[in-house]
Amino acid sequence: MLGLMMDRQLTITSIMEHADKNHPNAEIVSVTCDNPRHRYTYAGAFRRTRRLANALVDYGVQPGDRIATLAWNDYRHFELYYGIAGIGAVTHTVNPRLFPEQITYIVNHAEDRLIFVDPLIVASLEKISKDLPKVEGYIVLTDDEHMPDTNLKNAQSYEAFIGRHSAEFDWPELDEKTACSLCYTSGTTGNPKGILYHHRAMVLHTLIGISPGVLDLSVKDVVLPIVPMFHVNAWGLAYGPPAAGTKLVLPGPRMGDGETLQALIEEEGVTFAAGVPTVWLALLKYLSDSGKAIKTLERVIIGGSACPLSIMQELEDKHGVYVHHAWGMTEMSPLGTVNTLKPEMLKLSREEQYAIRQKQGRAAYGIEMKIVDDDNRELPRDGQSTGLLKVRGPFICSDYYKLGEPSDVHDDEGWFSTSDVGNIDPEGYLQLTDRAKDVIKSGGEWISSIELENAAIGHPGVAEAAVIGVPHPKWAERPLLIIVRKEGKDVSKEEMLDWLKDKVAKWWLPDDVVCIDEIPHTATGKIQKMELRKRFRNYTFQPD
Amino acid sequence: MLGLMMDRQLTITSIMEHADKNHPNAEIVSVTCDNPRHRYTYAGAFRRTRRLANALVDYGVQPGDRIATLAWNDYRHFELYYGIAGIGAVTHTVNPRLFPEQITYIVNHAEDRLIFVDPLIVASLEKISKDLPKVEGYIVLTDDEHMPDTNLKNAQSYEAFIGRHSAEFDWPELDEKTACSLCYTSGTTGNPKGILYHHRAMVLHTLIGISPGVLDLSVKDVVLPIVPMFHVNAWGLAYGPPAAGTKLVLPGPRMGDGETLQALIEEEGVTFAAGVPTVWLALLKYLSDSGKAIKTLERVIIGGSACPLSIMQELEDKHGVYVHHAWGMTEMSPLGTVNTLKPEMLKLSREEQYAIRQKQGRAAYGIEMKIVDDDNRELPRDGQSTGLLKVRGPFICSDYYKLGEPSDVHDDEGWFSTSDVGNIDPEGYLQLTDRAKDVIKSGGEWISSIELENAAIGHPGVAEAAVIGVPHPKWAERPLLIIVRKEGKDVSKEEMLDWLKDKVAKWWLPDDVVCIDEIPHTATGKIQKMELRKRFRNYTFQPD
Repeated sequence: MLGLMMDRQLTITSIMEHADKNHPNAEIVSVTCDNPRHRYTYAGAFRRTRRLANALVDYGVQPGDRIATLAWNDYRHFELYYGIAGIGAVTHTVNPRLFPEQITYIVNHAEDRLIFVDPLIVASLEKISKDLPKVEGYIVLTDDEHMPDTNLKNAQSYEAFIGRHSAEFDWPELDEKTACSLCYTSGTTGNPKGILYHHRAMVLHTLIGISPGVLDLSVKDVVLPIVPMFHVNAWGLAYGPPAAGTKLVLPGPRMGDGETLQALIEEEGVTFAAGVPTVWLALLKYLSDSGKAIKTLERVIIGGSACPLSIMQELEDKHGVYVHHAWGMTEMSPLGTVNTLKPEMLKLSREEQYAIRQKQGRAAYGIEMKIVDDDNRELPRDGQSTGLLKVRGPFICSDYYKLGEPSDVHDDEGWFSTSDVGNIDPEGYLQLTDRAKDVIKSGGEWISSIELENAAIGHPGVAEAAVIGVPHPKWAERPLLIIVRKEGKDVSKEEMLDWLKDKVAKWWLPDDVVCIDEIPHTATGKIQKMELRKRFRNYTFQPD
Repeated sequence: MLGLMMDRQLTITSIMEHADKNHPNAEIVSVTCDNPRHRYTYAGAFRRTRRLANALVDYGVQPGDRIATLAWNDYRHFELYYGIAGIGAVTHTVNPRLFPEQITYIVNHAEDRLIFVDPLIVASLEKISKDLPKVEGYIVLTDDEHMPDTNLKNAQSYEAFIGRHSAEFDWPELDEKTACSLCYTSGTTGNPKGILYHHRAMVLHTLIGISPGVLDLSVKDVVLPIVPMFHVNAWGLAYGPPAAGTKLVLPGPRMGDGETLQALIEEEGVTFAAGVPTVWLALLKYLSDSGKAIKTLERVIIGGSACPLSIMQELEDKHGVYVHHAWGMTEMSPLGTVNTLKPEMLKLSREEQYAIRQKQGRAAYGIEMKIVDDDNRELPRDGQSTGLLKVRGPFICSDYYKLGEPSDVHDDEGWFSTSDVGNIDPEGYLQLTDRAKDVIKSGGEWISSIELENAAIGHPGVAEAAVIGVPHPKWAERPLLIIVRKEGKDVSKEEMLDWLKDKVAKWWLPDDVVCIDEIPHTATGKIQKMELRKRFRNYTFQPD
């Protein structure tokens, strides 16, 4: 028997309309390349979003069309999140830091019709635009006055694009499972794969995200997302603040700049921020060098890769900022776990608390987790038994966009295999002990060891190559390339890096290259990375 | 185009499983008639819930069957909420305070197969059980040792019913729109009408309910629901605490007893409680008489009817408890609005803050509200324009259960007419000024009976106040103020009008004040204005 409740749909539009009616005067403050402090309100933002919606419809954008963004965290990107999804089209956020071939692949695979691009990214986009035949035009996120000279096809400024349109728009009533956004993972093997989010997933992720056990956002907060809006919905921070009525501070292209972050925090009264370990290192260094403070900041979420204890401690001891460790994946929208302590844990010693707090945290409501052994049997939640982590939930991907083959990471019962290895304790805390088999996480970004190996192996002097991640004080991990030379050949480090530099993204380049006589293999001929990691466990990169 | 996200269903079962895995050791403390302090954990509760599920299935309960409860707030009632809904049946919570004829009507209309009844309610149920032919049996919420003598058909104790069953149970994967619970409104006219909730509505209501802008529940809290579990899901407080990992304190049959409430608060460390104004009056009287404190209590939600300023101020000034005004309806699961101030409002004077805080508050995400005029045209959100309040949202009823006629409170666009009259201000705050049928129309203008009552109740000599409209030859209708004096106090008409004159508009001043011994109430504690109107139907104002 079905209940008798209204069939109202969970849409991003409803978040926008909630903020518009209940928090019209809450602020959004942005850094853009043409304005160090743009400020307006949610009412102002959504008035412009309606202009944008009219402009898109007038252009001929249809429901389901993919519209790309190559942009930093600012108010125009925020408007795009709502305007594109609100008309039933798909906001395809593209990471401008990817290698040009990857961007080309992604834009072509998604068949994006339009690209909204930050002025600072125009030059690099021009280099690949000839390889993007399906893109009909480019809209540069600025006004006519600041419009750069560009040969991009049908280029116009964003302000010109939306300016002549009405601020009245009747948002369509969408099915909550309508696709709203698309984000590609730069996976370890093969081509990037697209995760196609829908409205329902984003709304549930938002409601769960702002709850007290997770990000705990309310009208009392001021939020600074230091995680890019091209990274899996800025960890939900483009949706949570309007839903909660929270003031939003967007650092634009200055995300990695300690000076800008410190100024934004103190001047705008930021209470909450989120980012990968690397951004905190940059901020902490600036604070240490300048002697400046971040007094208003109360708490931060650190995820993307494991947070070193030293960052946690420095933020807390020197700056009074409480650090919550968190874990998620692009495939998970991204929320998986957040670490908050239970009341009885507050009675433990500082060391005992840190031992818990370094775990990835407890599953948010909606996330089911289990650890399985090699035969897919669930292991006990005892904090000891270690196995593959599988997850299920209403904002986890069920498949990849236009994959062209069956997904190999979903099992028959619908569980998604994270490729992460870890344990879960009796209180529900997840601890990841091993990364995805081969992946190297550098500054929150993934580096594919396999792609590096494939590039290295192409060198005429290389017989075999393996890449492993080695701890790095700044980037969390950096790739170490291990090679076996062909008999009678000599390959120097410099020669190897020179060989790689036009084959992979610059920031993927290994920090060191070492030669060994033999690479250990399994019985089936696979490289035993575990053995290599053991062997190089005491390796440290030489300072440049 | 649809997104590619998992189709996981939002079910009450998922709340239970979340708590079971993530908050196994959080406590539930109950008062029952056979135990002044029963305590166990969520893990313990859900272990027994699985026994209950086996017992229900073994008995032959089918998906969709209605199973009634006539019970207070305690752990067995909590288990019933989850066990019945979890197997796809419907928990029909019946208010034991209703008149016997109403209970008979409701149980027969719902066609309840079993009734789970508190020992204290057995005697009154015996009197009507002959009129409940479809009820197959009665399960008394106690153990064999405390089982009362009863002639109820097939009576057995709850502990005997569940005791012999396994604590292993495979919960079925339900469609999220499956009905889970049923609650009848005791309307003032006609027969009670049933609201049939579904799992999705309950989960969304829970997620929104625990969010920081609404009830703000987390592991740090200890929750005392002083609102009965037979009243519209205890305002969501049977679901929110397990979802948030919050310790739950259930006052059993001692809900109206100030002494029990004070003891529970201090001994269990209650931080948050919720209830109608009447329970706070009882508690405040006890505190005042005994000189005892409620030091751990931080904040309360007061709803059900408008909260008099005097209660707000006494809780805050004497006991340091922050009061959030809230509003909802049985038809709304019940959450509509909660009053929390925005940061800029904290800079206002205390009086200005109270003026805002006496409003019903802002709509929770998911709730759409509008005020319409007599022609169903939306009125401006200006804090002045007054009209009928309509609402829409994913946990608002779309119809009544087996009504047998078209719902007359839903319009063609799916809006539900609340029968409340009020205004919405530009910041989104709703202010209810009256029930549509209680509003007083004087010379074409509306006078709010609620505001007059709230002003009158603030007088130190007034125990209770009600305002009704009485026909007037010149103004069509004028307000008549009816008061019950506090014991030993005398309040004259002149004194009362003098008290009111700087609190309401001059033309709102009642034309007369009469004192009576008792104001009639409904079973749910609301003033029966219909009775008052009948009683004063021949009243005529004396010419001045």
